Amino acid sequence: MQLKPLQDRVVVQRLEEETKTAGGIIIPDNHTEKPSQGKIVAVGTGYRLTDGSVRNLDVKVGDTVLFGKYSGTSVKVDGKEVLIMKEEEILGILQ
Amino acid sequence: MQLKPLQDRVVVQRLEEETKTAGGIIIPDNHTEKPSQGKIVAVGTGYRLTDGSVRNLDVKVGDTVLFGKYSGTSVKVDGKEVLIMKEEEILGILQ
Amino acid sequence: MQLKPLQDRVVVQRLEEETKTAGGIIIPDNHTEKPSQGKIVAVGTGYRLTDGSVRNLDVKVGDTVLFGKYSGTSVKVDGKEVLIMKEEEILGILQ
Amino acid sequence: MQLKPLQDRVVVQRLEEETKTAGGIIIPDNHTEKPSQGKIVAVGTGYRLTDGSVRNLDVKVGDTVLFGKYSGTSVKVDGKEVLIMKEEEILGILQ
Amino acid sequence: MQLKPLQDRVVVQRLEEETKTAGGIIIPDNHTEKPSQGKIVAVGTGYRLTDGSVRNLDVKVGDTVLFGKYSGTSVKVDGKEVLIMKEEEILGILQ
Amino acid sequence: MQLKPLQDRVVVQRLEEETKTAGGIIIPDNHTEKPSQGKIVAVGTGYRLTDGSVRNLDVKVGDTVLFGKYSGTSVKVDGKEVLIMKEEEILGILQ
Amino acid sequence: MQLKPLQDRVVVQRLEEETKTAGGIIIPDNHTEKPSQGKIVAVGTGYRLTDGSVRNLDVKVGDTVLFGKYSGTSVKVDGKEVLIMKEEEILGILQ
Repeated sequence: MQLKPLQDRVVVQRLEEETKTAGGIIIPDNHTEKPSQGKIVAVGTGYRLTDGSVRNLDVKVGDTVLFGKYSGTSVKVDGKEVLIMKEEEILGILQ
Repeated sequence: MQLKPLQDRVVVQRLEEETKTAGGIIIPDNHTEKPSQGKIVAVGTGYRLTDGSVRNLDVKVGDTVLFGKYSGTSVKVDGKEVLIMKEEEILGILQ
Repeated sequence: MQLKPLQDRVVVQRLEEETKTAGGIIIPDNHTEKPSQGKIVAVGTGYRLTDGSVRNLDVKVGDTVLFGKYSGTSVKVDGKEVLIMKEEEILGILQ
Repeated sequence: MQLKPLQDRVVVQRLEEETKTAGGIIIPDNHTEKPSQGKIVAVGTGYRLTDGSVRNLDVKVGDTVLFGKYSGTSVKVDGKEVLIMKEEEILGILQ
Repeated sequence: MQLKPLQDRVVVQRLEEETKTAGGIIIPDNHTEKPSQGKIVAVGTGYRLTDGSVRNLDVKVGDTVLFGKYSGTSVKVDGKEVLIMKEEEILGILQ
Repeated sequence: MQLKPLQDRVVVQRLEEETKTAGGIIIPDNHTEKPSQGKIVAVGTGYRLTDGSVRNLDVKVGDTVLFGKYSGTSVKVDGKEVLIMKEEEILGILQ
Repeated sequence: MQLKPLQDRVVVQRLEEETKTAGGIIIPDNHTEKPSQGKIVAVGTGYRLTDGSVRNLDVKVGDTVLFGKYSGTSVKVDGKEVLIMKEEEILGILQ
């Protein structure tokens, strides 16, 4: 069973803090919401423009992304917990 | 008697927690609203664009969808309780 | 005397709870606003689009519709109480 | 002296409760703002669209209209009290 | 020295209550903000449309206008107190 | 070192109250925010329109402008304190 | 490892107060948020326009920019702390 997000939503698998690669993201203490890392596992069909056409998302399956710690909604599909969020909530891609 | 939703609304029949298929969605405890599963039983004619044309919805009758626990308005048609909600409130399709 | 609603407004005659047809809508207890049934008795000329053209409404005179219990403004025309509301407030059509 | 409203505004002369015609509007008790009747005495040049063109108003001088009890701003021109309001605030036309 | 308002702003010289002409505006007591009279002494170059073009204002220098009592910002230019406000804040023109 | 504002922002050098020319702006007591005078020392490249094109600003370097007392953000460049604000915050140009 | 910001976001490396060049920005006491200096280290692909096309950002890698003290989200990439923010939050470029 697979979860296909609608439109500009993506499904993200959160990366565990301990699976962080050397030189990876370490979240410093600051006043703003601390971002988390995750891997894109599914993307929607894209943004629906006002003229009816569709704009592809900038992220693709497999991308490692940064997003706000409280972004998205957590669900379990086939026993694996994932997050559904809007692409807008993704801060950047790690390359 | 049938309930035909307007424009970008859909009619959803909530799936009972106990009719959940093996490997289906199990809602973990977290800080956000827990999503529910349901089956699309009717869809509106689509989004009305600002130029007057119509954009079809992404979901279709028969789709199993995820939506926020408190999404939609509950009504009974011919003794069967259903939910009316906007497609925007649907998080994703289970395939 | 007749009440002609402007633009995207409609005039709805609320259907009494006791005139409900067999198998009709029974409003279950839930946390959201309970919808009511009514019959469309007049419709506006349509939505005014930003380019100046007009888009017809989706409901027509004679439609039985569902709408939020507190939708619209109640007025009496020739001794008959009706509701004026925007089409946007109508949840769906019963067919 | 005449008051010419700008753009999508209209000037309305409120009809006194006692000049109401037989079979006219009687405002029932309800939770929403009770509408009033009035006669359009002047209309603006129309809505300014985003492309710079102008869209005529739907009401015209002489129309008997329904509007919210607290709609508009009351002014006296040549000793006669009138209301200035946006056409959007008008619920419907009595015919 | 002259004050040239930007875009859709106008400069208005408030008319004193005692310079009101016979049959002029007398503000009745009501629950809304009481409008004031003034004379347009300068107008901006017009509304900037989203396509980059400019739409002229509906008021012109010399017009006697009605506006909300608390509309605009009061400044003194060459010892004469005037108001700067957006054309949108003007209710109508007295003719 | 020079501060180049982005898009529709401008850099304004506030004019001291005591450097006001004869017949200049004297701020009367009133309920609204008192405007200040300043000289435009840098302008952005212009408004970005939704179609991607750029619209020039209405103010230019050297203009003496009026703006709200609390408009903009104060910074020092090469020891000289200036304000960065959006053109929208400028009320008018003194000529 | 590199952090690529999405769309209209940029990655900024905050410049330390003590690395400020002679004649640089000194933040005066005032009622608004004090701006900070930083260097652009990565830019997104640009603004997504409503017609689906992309508009380049105005800032480029290497620019020294001013931004609000609390703008952006702080993350560490390869041990170096940077800020992710929207270009809109950048006040100006120092040249």
